[in-house]
Amino acid sequence: MSQFQTVRGMRDLLPEEARLMRRVEAQARRVAQLYGYKEIITPVVESYELLSAKAGDEVRSRMFVFKDLGGRDVALRPEFTASVARLVATTFRNTSRPFRLFCIGSIYRYDEPQRGRYREIWQSNYELMGSSRPEADAEILMLTSTLMRKAGLKKFDFKIGHVGVLRGIFNQEKLQDKVQSAVMQLMDKKQYDEALKLVEEAFVSKQCMKTLRELIDLKGNNVVDIVNKIETQVNEYEEAVEAARNLGEILELVQKSGCEIDMTVDAGFARGLEYYTGMIFEIYVPDLEIALCGGGRYDRLIELFGGEPTPAVGVAHGIDRMMLALQTQKETTKSAEERRVVVIPIKEELMSEALRISQMLRDADVSVEVEVMGRKMVKALEDADRRRIDFAVIVGEKELKENAVVIRDLARREQITVKISQIAETVGEKTAM
Amino acid sequence: MSQFQTVRGMRDLLPEEARLMRRVEAQARRVAQLYGYKEIITPVVESYELLSAKAGDEVRSRMFVFKDLGGRDVALRPEFTASVARLVATTFRNTSRPFRLFCIGSIYRYDEPQRGRYREIWQSNYELMGSSRPEADAEILMLTSTLMRKAGLKKFDFKIGHVGVLRGIFNQEKLQDKVQSAVMQLMDKKQYDEALKLVEEAFVSKQCMKTLRELIDLKGNNVVDIVNKIETQVNEYEEAVEAARNLGEILELVQKSGCEIDMTVDAGFARGLEYYTGMIFEIYVPDLEIALCGGGRYDRLIELFGGEPTPAVGVAHGIDRMMLALQTQKETTKSAEERRVVVIPIKEELMSEALRISQMLRDADVSVEVEVMGRKMVKALEDADRRRIDFAVIVGEKELKENAVVIRDLARREQITVKISQIAETVGEKTAM
Repeated sequence: MSQFQTVRGMRDLLPEEARLMRRVEAQARRVAQLYGYKEIITPVVESYELLSAKAGDEVRSRMFVFKDLGGRDVALRPEFTASVARLVATTFRNTSRPFRLFCIGSIYRYDEPQRGRYREIWQSNYELMGSSRPEADAEILMLTSTLMRKAGLKKFDFKIGHVGVLRGIFNQEKLQDKVQSAVMQLMDKKQYDEALKLVEEAFVSKQCMKTLRELIDLKGNNVVDIVNKIETQVNEYEEAVEAARNLGEILELVQKSGCEIDMTVDAGFARGLEYYTGMIFEIYVPDLEIALCGGGRYDRLIELFGGEPTPAVGVAHGIDRMMLALQTQKETTKSAEERRVVVIPIKEELMSEALRISQMLRDADVSVEVEVMGRKMVKALEDADRRRIDFAVIVGEKELKENAVVIRDLARREQITVKISQIAETVGEKTAM
Repeated sequence: MSQFQTVRGMRDLLPEEARLMRRVEAQARRVAQLYGYKEIITPVVESYELLSAKAGDEVRSRMFVFKDLGGRDVALRPEFTASVARLVATTFRNTSRPFRLFCIGSIYRYDEPQRGRYREIWQSNYELMGSSRPEADAEILMLTSTLMRKAGLKKFDFKIGHVGVLRGIFNQEKLQDKVQSAVMQLMDKKQYDEALKLVEEAFVSKQCMKTLRELIDLKGNNVVDIVNKIETQVNEYEEAVEAARNLGEILELVQKSGCEIDMTVDAGFARGLEYYTGMIFEIYVPDLEIALCGGGRYDRLIELFGGEPTPAVGVAHGIDRMMLALQTQKETTKSAEERRVVVIPIKEELMSEALRISQMLRDADVSVEVEVMGRKMVKALEDADRRRIDFAVIVGEKELKENAVVIRDLARREQITVKISQIAETVGEKTAM
């Protein structure tokens, strides 16, 4: 037995999984088109400087970093956003706003492997650049919902918050940026007590602590009600009030769009990445504790990468996790496979005829395998049966003299003789059944 | 201006190129289906031990090698074959032969960047496992030709040889394996004089030197003639005669298959990779000196990776190079783009209506952008014009009262009023024009 294995955290997708992965990928690409997003393909290997620039300590510490043979410090991308920001700050610097971009591919994070979490991760990533308006945020939520539905997920909930609510309070309380980031990261991990302790140690007002404690418990799926309560709760903090209103506008647009979305608004919701500035969201499904996607608004990021100030909102969907959710929800993950056809010559001398007939069928867009083991017909048919091939095209001398072949329906154990000029049509029809 | 750039040798595919790349990828996937190949997706990061096992010094010296955070020696795959061999030697160990696998993705080689050569390379890779018969080799040639034609290449030539011819001579002359590999690599680089010198220094027979000199000049597109000449030329070397006959059988099958293939048989053709054991080939197009693909038979590789002895034949197509060839041959590389539609509310208060209508259109599979900049209608229409959008769906109060909108054909500068329930149909028809 071979001693070779995949590297820890990496995995192979075997044919059935690969087909599902490519199906979700194709759906992600179609949804992008439906919303007017254009694809870009950026490299897996980027400069460490770029990838670490705004990544936050946690992502940075889990990157695959190395030197290339030219001594450059490089890393495997742990997300798409830095690469997109690089392009927006350079190549697309003068492209008129708004513009919509998407990427699909693999990213790399050295996480502890667990169910649904690998170190090579497949994502689809969408970014709407140049608009700071609520309809832009609404679009990203709608697009995400459309993709989840198209992929076949029946039950999924958006968890939605707004970074500006907490940031608004912290800013008015003059909490240092570093402390703010630390607090947000603790809240992302639901370590609320530790987060509150950190805030308290910064000598904020009593009002602040009271407001925060109440916000943390404020969540629910009556969207209008929760957003109103947040607004009331933070009424001492002007920036936070604005954030709550912005969230209300976004969600109202989504609800009126006719896009069916189950939402839970969560006032204590924070995301680990430091660059978010507005609405943030994730998607969860029953029986799976990991988020299927994450996104939000990040209006200052492009500037931080040296580009023109560009408001932006985006989302990354975990394709592996969507696959896992589909499997968990026992949705049909098998796409309708084509009927399968094998072409078998009854003797070796007829192999070139068998190849010619196969080629005719493929030219007519029919999928065909050829018997390449030199087995006798009976053996080849037995093997085709075992592998659940649907039809055998049997190439024999007698029939060839009349420009014909035998087509055998392996399931029904029936066979008919058909003119060569009509095989494509006959098998094509049969395979289309 | 941003100081961030792609790492040397890496590149971004911008929307037009990305579309072409994805089109070729989809064609590669369709051709795989037509020939009965199943997709597997293997990781970009594999163990250094696996990737270096049979790679040959040249490939090995140009790999992106590093340690992961767990201290494992890993590398970015420089080809797919080692990963496929790993799977064949493990997961697919007991799968009944033959089986057909394909992969599509990126590989990484630290080559000097030049036209059509990057350090991140997109390939499609097909392997037919378990058959040692000439129809298996013929299938790989036919599949490759089908893909090139489907991708839109009009002129391409197969350069075909057989490793067994030279190996047969060298084996009978008892040339050491190490010397054989060195000679083959020199011949791959067309350094024939150096290659012959190396052979001569090994004290081979005069007959051998004479045969080699004549073989090196033996090439042409009269396939039958050249193969016969090779056979005559090597008639003192039994293994080489067998190899020539095998090549003749393969090419006869291909020619009779009806698959139109331009071929040049080249007796002095060698490929750098050491693992080939039989027929080898590459594809060239006019005005481009690099091969678009490379493949051949490698019957001993799976064993070397610890698997069951498994004859195999395969090919890797350079998708980047095919794209370059398409651009060089000035083939239409633009796929027919969908008509583009933008939905514009005539005032802000109608944004939720605009979103609702967009969503209806997308549900009906029509691609739609929404105005998200809050611009006045005239500005938004001007922008749509500049970006060559085809249709604007204008959402106005007056029309909404009658459950209607205005649809404007931006090229023709005509507009009509349409019921909301019929927009999808109307715009769908228009976009399908």
